Amino acid sequence: MTEILDGKKTAEEIQEGLAERIERLQTEKGIRPGLAVVLVGEDPASAIYVRMKSKRAAKLGMHSEVLKFPATTTKDELHKAIDGLNLNSDIHGILVQLPLPDHLDPHETIDWIMPAKDVDGLTAISQGLLYRGQPCLAPCTPKGMLRLLDVYGITTEGKNVVVVGRSELVGRPLAVMLSSRKRNATVTVAHTRTRNLGEITKKADIVAIAAGKAHMLNASHFSEGVVVIDAGTNTIPCPEAKNGQKLVGDVDYESVSKLASYITPVPGGVGPMTVCMLLENTFEAALMASEG
Amino acid sequence: MTEILDGKKTAEEIQEGLAERIERLQTEKGIRPGLAVVLVGEDPASAIYVRMKSKRAAKLGMHSEVLKFPATTTKDELHKAIDGLNLNSDIHGILVQLPLPDHLDPHETIDWIMPAKDVDGLTAISQGLLYRGQPCLAPCTPKGMLRLLDVYGITTEGKNVVVVGRSELVGRPLAVMLSSRKRNATVTVAHTRTRNLGEITKKADIVAIAAGKAHMLNASHFSEGVVVIDAGTNTIPCPEAKNGQKLVGDVDYESVSKLASYITPVPGGVGPMTVCMLLENTFEAALMASEG
Repeated sequence: MTEILDGKKTAEEIQEGLAERIERLQTEKGIRPGLAVVLVGEDPASAIYVRMKSKRAAKLGMHSEVLKFPATTTKDELHKAIDGLNLNSDIHGILVQLPLPDHLDPHETIDWIMPAKDVDGLTAISQGLLYRGQPCLAPCTPKGMLRLLDVYGITTEGKNVVVVGRSELVGRPLAVMLSSRKRNATVTVAHTRTRNLGEITKKADIVAIAAGKAHMLNASHFSEGVVVIDAGTNTIPCPEAKNGQKLVGDVDYESVSKLASYITPVPGGVGPMTVCMLLENTFEAALMASEG
Repeated sequence: MTEILDGKKTAEEIQEGLAERIERLQTEKGIRPGLAVVLVGEDPASAIYVRMKSKRAAKLGMHSEVLKFPATTTKDELHKAIDGLNLNSDIHGILVQLPLPDHLDPHETIDWIMPAKDVDGLTAISQGLLYRGQPCLAPCTPKGMLRLLDVYGITTEGKNVVVVGRSELVGRPLAVMLSSRKRNATVTVAHTRTRNLGEITKKADIVAIAAGKAHMLNASHFSEGVVVIDAGTNTIPCPEAKNGQKLVGDVDYESVSKLASYITPVPGGVGPMTVCMLLENTFEAALMASEG
């Protein structure tokens, strides 16, 4: 029997609890968590993401603002805007939507955010703290993937976990978090240069995929009973769909769901958990600020 | 045929080259690389390490100084001393010898060092940069282990590498460096909570061990032809030795050397490479400072 790791439902439940905690923080301490999303340029997908994040934050009772800049914004102008948000006591979380226009270095831009407001967990300092196992705001996608396992009671202690993908946003931090003393998984990171990938994934108790390649893994890559968490969000052509395309994961859900014990759907799996963790991180940043 | 990965000889060769480059930097740019080692308290092993590092640096033509502080030194006093070194243009590398007395937090102390002078590669920022694959001063032990592989022409591309140990100083950064786009190994991190360790290490092309446990792995853990790099430095009782003890690795060299294709001895393997990389990092920090 395959159980679906329902990210949409789980995220909604977490968000209900968050809304209550946000209200309490405001009643008891007079602090309303504030999220600022910085959008540079006109990328249509980015505009949709930004609007969605901002709307969700507002729905939970947070203060939420979007700062829009033209694609021609200079480094100095952007840094100055981030400086303003760093100093603004109404703002507890700052997120710079990626990708940025080519002339702006994403690392340099993100490192301009003060770590206490780095709700995406992507500054060099946040990543260094995560890597050391110290308290920090963790990146939203891997945090959401692990929370989903927690909610469904799937432990990682002593288990063989394979992470497919070594991106800075997902694969690497996920591997670090899984092999921490809190999670104690034995973690293998596989990637584009890995030989015998199927051999490796077949031996895993849990496989987490963030490779960014539609249907890269199918039933032949897994053993019966595996737990599969798929962070892939790829659009492929789909003549039946209204807009001519559909969203699929890195795993062929159709075939893999037949042998997995647990599996995330795409959409409705990791995606909603990512946004949910952004909101949770913003609440946590506000809570930390309230405690000095 | 087993080949010994001779860290002592390799380190000496690298240091010869370094001495030449140090002289050239001084002649051409008037810059003499400077290393400051900070020692707090009276730990006898630390005193020996510090003296050795400082002597080696001086031998290569570097400026080298040791700052000794009593075990009762306060956090503020220590931070002030590090501030002075951060601002001192004669000093390009700063190293705080660990362990520190209990009342001083090692992370907080190390993070007081400016990243450009962090020749141990242990500040949160250095670790974040390493983790992202950006240029940085890398931690000396993992850097030395990989250099030893390079010198002996052992590539890691596409190979299955098992790292035993997940310490912040060795195991974690080593795993990150091995799975980077530069090295492209498929890396598994094993640790105290790993089940079936022998099964995992038996499948590896290369096993790197930094577990800190004398003779934890023996011939039964490895397959014929494996490459073994042992960062363990454990003292065990030895009645025949003058001081009643001897230095051994995490691997039982006696039995494992019979089936490995390459293996590091202890002592004379990873140890000398670690000190050598500290000297190289100090030179590199001076070179970067000279280039503004």
